[in-house]
Amino acid sequence: MSYQLLRGLRVVESSAFVAAPLAGLTLAQHGADVIRVDMIGGGIDYGRLPRVPGTGRSLYWTGLNKGKRSIAVDLKHPEGRELVQALATAPDAPGTTGGVLLTNIGTPWLAHEALAARRADVISCTIQGHADGGTAVDYTVQCATGYPALTGPGSAAQPVNQVLPAWDIACAYHAAFSIMAALDRRRSSGAGAELKLALSDLAYAMLSHLGVLAEAELLQQDRAALGNHVYGAFGRDFATADGRRVMVVGISAGQWRSLVAACDAAEAIARLEARTGLDLTDEAQRFEAREAIAALLEPWFAERPYAEVARVLDAHRVCWGTYRTPREALADDPRCGIANPLFERISTLGVGEHLAAGAALRVTAEAREPIRPAPLLGADTDAVLHEVLGLPAGAIGRLHDTGIVAGPEHDPTFKPRR
Amino acid sequence: MSYQLLRGLRVVESSAFVAAPLAGLTLAQHGADVIRVDMIGGGIDYGRLPRVPGTGRSLYWTGLNKGKRSIAVDLKHPEGRELVQALATAPDAPGTTGGVLLTNIGTPWLAHEALAARRADVISCTIQGHADGGTAVDYTVQCATGYPALTGPGSAAQPVNQVLPAWDIACAYHAAFSIMAALDRRRSSGAGAELKLALSDLAYAMLSHLGVLAEAELLQQDRAALGNHVYGAFGRDFATADGRRVMVVGISAGQWRSLVAACDAAEAIARLEARTGLDLTDEAQRFEAREAIAALLEPWFAERPYAEVARVLDAHRVCWGTYRTPREALADDPRCGIANPLFERISTLGVGEHLAAGAALRVTAEAREPIRPAPLLGADTDAVLHEVLGLPAGAIGRLHDTGIVAGPEHDPTFKPRR
Repeated sequence: MSYQLLRGLRVVESSAFVAAPLAGLTLAQHGADVIRVDMIGGGIDYGRLPRVPGTGRSLYWTGLNKGKRSIAVDLKHPEGRELVQALATAPDAPGTTGGVLLTNIGTPWLAHEALAARRADVISCTIQGHADGGTAVDYTVQCATGYPALTGPGSAAQPVNQVLPAWDIACAYHAAFSIMAALDRRRSSGAGAELKLALSDLAYAMLSHLGVLAEAELLQQDRAALGNHVYGAFGRDFATADGRRVMVVGISAGQWRSLVAACDAAEAIARLEARTGLDLTDEAQRFEAREAIAALLEPWFAERPYAEVARVLDAHRVCWGTYRTPREALADDPRCGIANPLFERISTLGVGEHLAAGAALRVTAEAREPIRPAPLLGADTDAVLHEVLGLPAGAIGRLHDTGIVAGPEHDPTFKPRR
Repeated sequence: MSYQLLRGLRVVESSAFVAAPLAGLTLAQHGADVIRVDMIGGGIDYGRLPRVPGTGRSLYWTGLNKGKRSIAVDLKHPEGRELVQALATAPDAPGTTGGVLLTNIGTPWLAHEALAARRADVISCTIQGHADGGTAVDYTVQCATGYPALTGPGSAAQPVNQVLPAWDIACAYHAAFSIMAALDRRRSSGAGAELKLALSDLAYAMLSHLGVLAEAELLQQDRAALGNHVYGAFGRDFATADGRRVMVVGISAGQWRSLVAACDAAEAIARLEARTGLDLTDEAQRFEAREAIAALLEPWFAERPYAEVARVLDAHRVCWGTYRTPREALADDPRCGIANPLFERISTLGVGEHLAAGAALRVTAEAREPIRPAPLLGADTDAVLHEVLGLPAGAIGRLHDTGIVAGPEHDPTFKPRR
């Protein structure tokens, strides 16, 4: 389900993998007309795992390209490139604002100056690995941040990679923001903008924003691995009597009071304070005493089945969560299913019917529009060429005949009915 | 260093911890006037670790609040609350657009309807734990996503938490985007918007976008832990002869060819293909053969010192990265220092001189403005009350005298010169 905040905005996306497609998805789920451009037959991410048996359609690709329109173009042919340039720089029409390119593919024919020569106020946003043009992906950036040495049992000698593509995700939303910031200025000043956002710049900037670089520089310390403990206060996972695991935190004073009360631990905590001389109402001292606190709370969780733990923690308004697999989340958590208004059941060609999420944002009192599933490659080729470029049917037919563009029947996962 | 894309936009931020402050930082680093409102003496995140010895100032807080203005207010006093409401709903002036509140503190006196009664087109953006009002933080949401069971040596019984607050970071940038999307609509339609963004909604939506939920539902499978392998293609970490570690990936066909060439492994890979019948030019088959590929490449890395590994990988344009701690990044990586134009050395009160990052975004040919360090609490109390609310000096003095507002001398880390 998407909102129409950005109705009338048209964005051309030439992309692959996670960051740029997720930025485009974000714009699309808030009402923009996002036209994803792909090579006929699919780009380098079109077959990315997991794939649906039989059709081979990628659940990854169809997840990241919901709500977009697709045009399939021979991007190696000058005439195909010319079409993409024309789409990205088409003039505005009443009620429609275009001239926005989102890409992570640094290619000369899509360079900002090439587009600006056609439309002076174009906004281009290029997601890069490194700003110097070097190649990088989430995994080759996260290793440089120091986090793998802090994760779980990780160390500098045995780092533990983070599986969530967190830097890609951050980059995606930052790129969507950046485009909106540049658009905001363009609406008032008329100026376009060439925007570049590199994964490694974002990661290193984040180390500054989170205080990690200042700690390294001024205190001359790198953080140590803490297992599943939360840094700077108290928080850890615990096992229940029936083998489930929960994460509980006491970061704020209120969260800490709730946790102590829920676990009936006030007296034990008071004894711990007396023994150590620590004041555990102070988050930093809770952090110092984290192992002792955890040891003290462990039996409470270990003696109770999950259902009881959940009931008591909720009754005390403890800040906690349950470890689940995605299948367990689908089965057990109403927040992860159609009881949550951001979810819908949709039907994606080559995939079938499945649960899918629209915008995570909630806009009070605004109607959500239905989620549109990911298109087949080229599903919108003709409509886009006609609507945006004003090409007549004959010209579009000639582009098909010469192989410059293609429709959905050329999607490699397309299975015609027999 | 910040850009002036959002010059003239004023945002009032009433926040704590990571997500909302990082959203405000993002707006500030792109030119918005972000006014952070805090309780006199500091909110619940003001002393968060790490702290500077002596002054006790938080490197975390000063990292996330660069470039903002600060007003310190008694938020428990009705007159203090009235001031914050007035700031968030002050009318626009020529060249200035306000009426935007960013918060993660769900309190009735800052509720959207209370603000909309004062300014009909107000935009409020509230970051929540759960959309139903339940409390949650990054750690209690990540456990529900399934990722801790996939991380490193993790399993459902022994999950490994991710240390980077990735969901907070995603939420921050998404919130900054959402505010811009609502502003874009307000500029054309005049309508305000009540925006709510919950950490758990964002996380579960991401599981849909990344294909994880469809995989769980349609293929009835949860992913397995892969150690440091990349899912769906080839990528893993390797140790060098001198004890360093590098991460290399061969996700795209080009990256794979580069890696094979760099490690002089073409013949060995051909033998592996012949033996297994796999076609390793296909990413899915590389993933299937990941253990065998890794075993085959390991000696190449193990026999060479890091300097040689780096030189050869770069010469072949392999996509790779180095595991570093933050101190090593500061010492060894020019991307993490003043050679990178997004960094500057700044001087923060109570902290001293240190490296800091401005906007990660690069806007070609636009000047960056100097980074403004995080303010002391209340550093801008008088200026904000005068500029935004038009209060005369006498009224501001009375607010100080009655303890409704405070200046920087009441910051608990303020150390007057003796």
